[in-house]
Amino acid sequence: MSHKTDIEIAREAHKRPIQEIGAKLGIGSDDLLPYGHDKAKISQSFIDSVQGRDNGKLILVTAINPTPAGEGKTTTTVGLGDGLNAIGKKAAVCIREASLGPNFGMKGGAAGGGYAQIIPMEEMNLHFTGDFHAITSAHNLLSAMIDNHIYWGNELEIDERRITWRRVMDMNDRALRDNVVGLGGVANGFARQTGFDITVASEVMAILCLADGLEDLQKRLGAMIVAYRRDRTPVYARDLKADGAMTVLLRDAMQPNLVQTLENNPALVHGGPFANIAHGCNSVIATKTALKCADYVVTEAGFGADLGAEKFMNIKCRKAGLAPAAVVVVATVRAMKMNGGVAKADLGSENVEAVQAGCPNLGRHIENLKSFGVPVVVAINHFVTDTEAEVQAVKDYVKTQGSEAILCQHWAKGSEGTKELATRVAEIADADMANFAPLYGDDMPLFEKIETIARRIYRADEVLADKKVRDQLREWEAAGYGELPVCMAKTQYSFSTDPNLRGAPIGHSVPIREVRLSAGAGFVVVICGEIMTMPGLPRNPAAENIRINEEGLVEGLF
Amino acid sequence: MSHKTDIEIAREAHKRPIQEIGAKLGIGSDDLLPYGHDKAKISQSFIDSVQGRDNGKLILVTAINPTPAGEGKTTTTVGLGDGLNAIGKKAAVCIREASLGPNFGMKGGAAGGGYAQIIPMEEMNLHFTGDFHAITSAHNLLSAMIDNHIYWGNELEIDERRITWRRVMDMNDRALRDNVVGLGGVANGFARQTGFDITVASEVMAILCLADGLEDLQKRLGAMIVAYRRDRTPVYARDLKADGAMTVLLRDAMQPNLVQTLENNPALVHGGPFANIAHGCNSVIATKTALKCADYVVTEAGFGADLGAEKFMNIKCRKAGLAPAAVVVVATVRAMKMNGGVAKADLGSENVEAVQAGCPNLGRHIENLKSFGVPVVVAINHFVTDTEAEVQAVKDYVKTQGSEAILCQHWAKGSEGTKELATRVAEIADADMANFAPLYGDDMPLFEKIETIARRIYRADEVLADKKVRDQLREWEAAGYGELPVCMAKTQYSFSTDPNLRGAPIGHSVPIREVRLSAGAGFVVVICGEIMTMPGLPRNPAAENIRINEEGLVEGLF
Repeated sequence: MSHKTDIEIAREAHKRPIQEIGAKLGIGSDDLLPYGHDKAKISQSFIDSVQGRDNGKLILVTAINPTPAGEGKTTTTVGLGDGLNAIGKKAAVCIREASLGPNFGMKGGAAGGGYAQIIPMEEMNLHFTGDFHAITSAHNLLSAMIDNHIYWGNELEIDERRITWRRVMDMNDRALRDNVVGLGGVANGFARQTGFDITVASEVMAILCLADGLEDLQKRLGAMIVAYRRDRTPVYARDLKADGAMTVLLRDAMQPNLVQTLENNPALVHGGPFANIAHGCNSVIATKTALKCADYVVTEAGFGADLGAEKFMNIKCRKAGLAPAAVVVVATVRAMKMNGGVAKADLGSENVEAVQAGCPNLGRHIENLKSFGVPVVVAINHFVTDTEAEVQAVKDYVKTQGSEAILCQHWAKGSEGTKELATRVAEIADADMANFAPLYGDDMPLFEKIETIARRIYRADEVLADKKVRDQLREWEAAGYGELPVCMAKTQYSFSTDPNLRGAPIGHSVPIREVRLSAGAGFVVVICGEIMTMPGLPRNPAAENIRINEEGLVEGLF
Repeated sequence: MSHKTDIEIAREAHKRPIQEIGAKLGIGSDDLLPYGHDKAKISQSFIDSVQGRDNGKLILVTAINPTPAGEGKTTTTVGLGDGLNAIGKKAAVCIREASLGPNFGMKGGAAGGGYAQIIPMEEMNLHFTGDFHAITSAHNLLSAMIDNHIYWGNELEIDERRITWRRVMDMNDRALRDNVVGLGGVANGFARQTGFDITVASEVMAILCLADGLEDLQKRLGAMIVAYRRDRTPVYARDLKADGAMTVLLRDAMQPNLVQTLENNPALVHGGPFANIAHGCNSVIATKTALKCADYVVTEAGFGADLGAEKFMNIKCRKAGLAPAAVVVVATVRAMKMNGGVAKADLGSENVEAVQAGCPNLGRHIENLKSFGVPVVVAINHFVTDTEAEVQAVKDYVKTQGSEAILCQHWAKGSEGTKELATRVAEIADADMANFAPLYGDDMPLFEKIETIARRIYRADEVLADKKVRDQLREWEAAGYGELPVCMAKTQYSFSTDPNLRGAPIGHSVPIREVRLSAGAGFVVVICGEIMTMPGLPRNPAAENIRINEEGLVEGLF
C-alpha cells in the first residue's frame, strides 16, 4: 500500500528519454518531434509508412455509470496497458488530453492514479504540446473571419441572427457564456449576441479527433456550418475560405503525442472532445497509429458505457473502420454500493447486500456491450476498504451474467496488480471472439437512431420530441445528412435523463430538448437536458493555491 | 543577386540540429528543452549557472522613422550577427517573437529577409514554442478570476464600472474590441462592458519581457492593477490570488527560445510586447543570457529610434541594468528619399537631392542616440536600385554628423555583405567608448519625464495635457509610482504626433490624450493619439489564401 499522493509518485518515476519509448513501438528518433525530453509528436511520414501493416487488437475500457465514489477508468486503462507489457505483450495505451481551464477550478486531474499513471503529469495538465491552443486559434480565426466578412459587405448574405459559430477559450469563464460583441461604433462592426464555449466543446476538436489525415481534416473543417442565410440555406466554413488556414494552424496538433506510463510503456495522448456534445474519445489518428505499432492497444471512452462506449462504437468505430476485440468494464465495490443506495459517508463499512443491490447497473452495461458483438470482462478496481465478501459478491453476480470479473490492484501495485486481467484480456482478444457491429445502420432515419439507442441502451419506453425537433431532423435528412450517426448528450450518472436515478431503471422517457448538426465532425447532437458548454469557477478556485514553491515545483495543481 | 523569395531561401537553408547551435554558446543538450529538432528553450538551471560570468558587448540596432519603403531593421540585426561570426567573433542575435493574429490579416513577417533570416520561419510565424498562448492563458485566467470573484460575493468590493483588466486573444478580431459580457441571467454573473486586446498588448507580455526570473515575474504579476473600488483604491492581481497560478502557466514561457540564422549562428527569439503601449523589446532574460554566452549580442527595438531606442534605453536598459556598447542606425537610400519628399512610385530613379533632403531625419536620430552616451554607426541597407551617388550622399551627410555610414549587402549576400560593418562595430564596442546613461533620473516628476523626451528626442516645443491627466500623474506620484519611467505611445512615422510630418520637424506640440499605469511592468504609458490595441482583418485577409499545398508545404503565409 502506498501512502504517497499521485503527484509524489509521478515525480519519483524513473522516466526514460522519449526516444527509448518510441523505440518500443519501432518509431525512430527522426520520426519523433520532441517537446522537451519526455514528450514527442509522431511524424506524419512515420504514420504514412506503417499504413500497410496489420492492426493490433483494440481493447476498450469503459465503466459503469460514474458515482462520486470514482470508478478509476483511466487508471485501469493505464494499469491494463502496463499489465499487458508485464506479461510480455507489446501494448500501448491511448487516452485523451486534459483541458487546461477546469484545472484552475477544481484540482487538476492526473492521467490515471497511484502506480498506474501517465507522465509527465504536470505538463499534461498545463499546456502539454499546445494542441488545445492550436484548436482555440483555429476556431477563433474562423469566428473573426465571419464578423470580418460581414463588416466588409457580407457578400455571402449571412443572417447575423443565425450565426451558430461561437468563439472558444480553454478557460472556465462563465462571464463569456453569453455576450454582445461588435459594440463601439462603425469601426468595430455590427453588434450581435453570441458567446464563448470551452475549447473542448469546439467542433474543431471533434473533427481533429475523427479526421484520418490533413486532407480529411481540411475537408471536414470546410464542411462545418457556421451560419444560415435569411432563406435558411447554410453557410459553410469553406465559403469563408477559412479551411486552409485552419488546417495550417492545426498541422502539428494533428500529430499524435507520445508519452510514457510510470513503467515506461508507450502512451499516446491525443485530442479530448467533450463527452456530451461530442463523442468523448481520443483521436482516430492516435488509435490507428498505435494499432499499427503495437499488438494490443488499450483505450477508453468518456463517462459510463451507456454514453461513452455507445459513442465509441457507433461514432468512432463506425467512422474510422475500427472494431474492438474486447471490452473491459470497470466497476468498484464502492460504486456498486452507491448504486445500491449507500451514501458516500457510509462506504467504509462492509455491506454485501448493498453491493448486490447495485450490481444490476453493471449487469445492464455488460448486456448492452455484448449487443455490439464484443466479449466483455469486468475489472474490479480494488480500494483498500473493499472486503473479500464484497468483491466475491461482484464476481458471483458477473458470473450469472455470463461474464467474468477480475480483481485488479494496479493503483497500489502497478502492473503486478493487473497481470491476471491482462492475461485474460489477451486470451480473449487473441481468440478473435468479437463480431463487432454498430447498433444501427447508416440508412436508418435519424429519429429512429435516437429511439434505437434510447430503447436498447437506456431501456427507455419512449423518446419525447416536439414537432420542431422532428421537423429539423427531417430537414437534415432531406439535405443529405440522414446517414450521420447521432451523438447523445445526456447525464452520465444514470441510464435515464434523471441523474439521481441510479441502478438499472426501466420505463422512463427520454425528452429531447434540442438537436444540433455537426456537419464537419459528421454527427447530429441530440441534447437531452441541460448541457453546459462553458463551465464556471467555484467560490474558491484551485487557481488561488496554485504556485511554484521554494523547490521550484508546481503546487496546488493536483 | 537572388531572385528567390524569403520563404524559398529559408526552406533551402542547411539547418543544423539545435544542439549544435546551443554548443556554439556553450549550452549542453541537457540544458536545451527541444521543441522539434530546430527550436529549444534554454533551461533555468543553465541560466542560473552562468550568472557569475562577465557580460559580452550589447549592440542595439535601431532605425530612422519607418516609411512604406521599408528600412530592414531585423534583416540588419541578423546580418550583423552573422557578420560578426563571419569575422571570427562569438556573437548571438536577440529579437522578438511574432504575433500569430496579424499573420492572417496581412502576409506574415519573416524574421529578417533575403540571406539574413532566422529560421524555422514557418513555426516562428505560427505557434512557435507556445509562449504567446501561455501569455493568453495567464491573462485570461486573471480575467475569469475577477468576474468569478464578483459572482461569489465581491468580497474585495471591486467597482464593476472600474475594472481596467480586459481579456486578450492572439487574433485580429475587431468584433471583440468592445463588448458586454455576463449576459444571460443570474448563473452567468453580472453584465458589464469590457473588451479584448491582442495578446502582445497584454501587460503580462510586457512583464514577461522585463522580469529577471520566476520570482520577479510573480511579484510583478501580483502588482498589476486590475480594478478600482468605489473609493478609488486599486485592486491588485495578488488580491485575487491569481499571481501564483499565472506564474505556473508562464513557467516554460519565461525560458528563452534558441533558434538559428541561415548561417547557423545562434539567435534567441523571446517575447514580443507591443512597441506602442509597451516597450517593444525582446525579453530581458534572453538578452542577459545571451550576454553571458556570447562576446557580442546584437538586438533591436521596435519602430524608429525616437520610440524604440528611447524605450530600450530608458525602460529596458534602466530596469535591467544593461548598457549598449554601440548603436547601429539602419537607413536606406529609399527611405531617405521618401523623407526627402519622393513618392513611393518614384523611388526607382536616381535622385541625390531627395536623398540629401531626407538626411536630416537620420541626422537627428544620430544626435539623439549620442545624447545617451553611446557611439553610433549608420548601416546603409542596400537595395538593388540604389545608385553609387545616392549611397555616397548618405555617407557624406553622416560624416558631417561626426559619425560613419557603412554600406551593407546582407540581404543579397549574407554575412559577406556585413563584414565591414561587423568589423567596425566590434572595434567600437571593444574600445569601450560608451558612457551610457538614461535620459532622465528616476526621481524626476512624471510630467517632467514626458517633457524631457518630447523636447530632447522629439524636439517639440511643448507637451499639451489637460488637468485630468496632470492630476492623474500627481496621484500616482503620491501613491509611490513617481519613480517609474514613462512609456511613450505615439506614431512611429514622425518625430511629431502627425504621421505625415516626415524629416526633422521642430516647433510642434505633443498632446497627451490619456495616461495608463502598468504597475506590474513598471511604467506609465503616455498615449499621444489613437492607439489600436486590437487590430482588425482587411477586406481580403491573408487567411483566405493560406493552406497546405500538394507538397505538404505551407502556402500563403509569407
